[in-house]
Amino acid sequence: MPSIPTLSDIQAAYKRIRPFVHETPVHTSQTINRITGSDIYFKCENFQKAGAFKYRGATNAIMALSAKEAGKGVATHSSGNHAAALALAAAIRGIKCYVVMPSSAPETKIKAVKNYGAEITFCEPTLESRESTLKQVVKRTGSVFIHPFDDFNVVCGQGTATLELLNHCSGTDIVMAPVGGGGLLGGTSIAAKSVRSEIIVYGAEPKNADDAYRSLKSGILQPPLKPNTIADGLLTALSELTFTIISKYTDDIFTVSEASIVEAMKLIWQLMKIIVEPSSAVPLAAIIENPEAFRGKKTGIILSGGNVDLSKLPF
Amino acid sequence: MPSIPTLSDIQAAYKRIRPFVHETPVHTSQTINRITGSDIYFKCENFQKAGAFKYRGATNAIMALSAKEAGKGVATHSSGNHAAALALAAAIRGIKCYVVMPSSAPETKIKAVKNYGAEITFCEPTLESRESTLKQVVKRTGSVFIHPFDDFNVVCGQGTATLELLNHCSGTDIVMAPVGGGGLLGGTSIAAKSVRSEIIVYGAEPKNADDAYRSLKSGILQPPLKPNTIADGLLTALSELTFTIISKYTDDIFTVSEASIVEAMKLIWQLMKIIVEPSSAVPLAAIIENPEAFRGKKTGIILSGGNVDLSKLPF
Repeated sequence: MPSIPTLSDIQAAYKRIRPFVHETPVHTSQTINRITGSDIYFKCENFQKAGAFKYRGATNAIMALSAKEAGKGVATHSSGNHAAALALAAAIRGIKCYVVMPSSAPETKIKAVKNYGAEITFCEPTLESRESTLKQVVKRTGSVFIHPFDDFNVVCGQGTATLELLNHCSGTDIVMAPVGGGGLLGGTSIAAKSVRSEIIVYGAEPKNADDAYRSLKSGILQPPLKPNTIADGLLTALSELTFTIISKYTDDIFTVSEASIVEAMKLIWQLMKIIVEPSSAVPLAAIIENPEAFRGKKTGIILSGGNVDLSKLPF
Repeated sequence: MPSIPTLSDIQAAYKRIRPFVHETPVHTSQTINRITGSDIYFKCENFQKAGAFKYRGATNAIMALSAKEAGKGVATHSSGNHAAALALAAAIRGIKCYVVMPSSAPETKIKAVKNYGAEITFCEPTLESRESTLKQVVKRTGSVFIHPFDDFNVVCGQGTATLELLNHCSGTDIVMAPVGGGGLLGGTSIAAKSVRSEIIVYGAEPKNADDAYRSLKSGILQPPLKPNTIADGLLTALSELTFTIISKYTDDIFTVSEASIVEAMKLIWQLMKIIVEPSSAVPLAAIIENPEAFRGKKTGIILSGGNVDLSKLPF
């Protein structure tokens, strides 16, 4: 059984990363509230440094390293947001960063990683290729591997967004986050349940990448089944660590259609005038598909990120 | 010579509209500052109600009406943002709103006006058709015409964004706003120069719709010359009122290319993760084209609005 972070671990992470992260704003939309019959608070991690919540976890993992551990730099594999976040956090600590990325990653995400000064090694877009290429990079450089989500300190960092959200919105009934590898949902659910046990925590996942839903329902960690969704941040499957956390702290996971994700994304863009990536729109899609579960409730949503390729929009 | 608002008129407007408008946030981007060598503060009127600064002027004009004046409603002609703003402000005061719009107006803007409950009469996309159609509407309904910019109270309302901006950013060297009909630049320049006379006020205008630039340079109000720009909020020409104000209070007007407008808009979308319409990007385009005028200076920019048709993006 992996060791699970507690609220005090997340609070310690917050103290550690606070000088380096944005305290992102919480936005609301009267029109979206009217459409959904709900009362929604959007925690804007699309405004976080490097454009996503991933910067919190990456910063916590990097700042927690001893000088000796950090000396040879850090490495990771990621389709995008974690890579950019780790690259920026490494640059701020002044250490090297090595990133293994699939050659199919969005151009904006590749560019961001390069701009932050990381060294990129491209691989095939399979988990196998990622992992074997990463092994070679770590062996060659002696760097420390920081996993995108299967990492105690990364999960703690991601949970800090919920500390800020709950601090801003008292009386929150429900907190919801998208779930891919489960780092965000894991940190979110520990933070929310530990701050106030009455808070209901939901995950939101594309139907076309529903391994977390199947894992939670079966009680056994399920493999992904050819995930194919516009929410490209949610393609990965849970790890043993995040599955253990989510099984313990998350009340349920909603799965949503691709059409609902695009509809929710369009509502956020048009009505809130903010840019979010498809993964961020998955929780609102869950509200649109299941309005009765949220009616009259105060729901906090983590808008996970805003890194989109503007030349490839779904509308 | 038309009567020009003073700082105390704008302060009175602010007191009047404050319960009804959002105090919009001021955003910054380290990357845009690095690219431009400047220090830019973006006043996010794209987050204003109805998605644009126009709501300030419309609200001030409507809330300043006596009960008797307001009784038969208000009317206007507008290609979009003023119409939506007036419709919402009228709905909040509980009075009727009649809008004359060119049938070529963007669908999102037509929809917004309808959603706020205004009655739309479509006209040809010419100033003549707008004005004659409006005359008929006013005659038929007995409503009060609220001009989009050639109106004392509207100019005062638009100036309130600058009061908030300067209150938020002390030591601002330059304030810049896009210029179409001149309501925003007029209110902005009175507010900025009156709060602190050392502040430099610039207008920013598309080269392809440069009537304000030509008017300021010649000292004589110039007609538009077939304006054709992606910045569809800036197609209109100054009025006698706004020309008089801008001549007195604005230091200079920069004109920019269409390519720069699209480049600036893309930078704002990609790096700041916010949605702005092309008109809003015109001041940043002026900085990109004239970096030396802004280098090392603290520049406040009014991001005028965020109402775009997502199916018709320039990238």
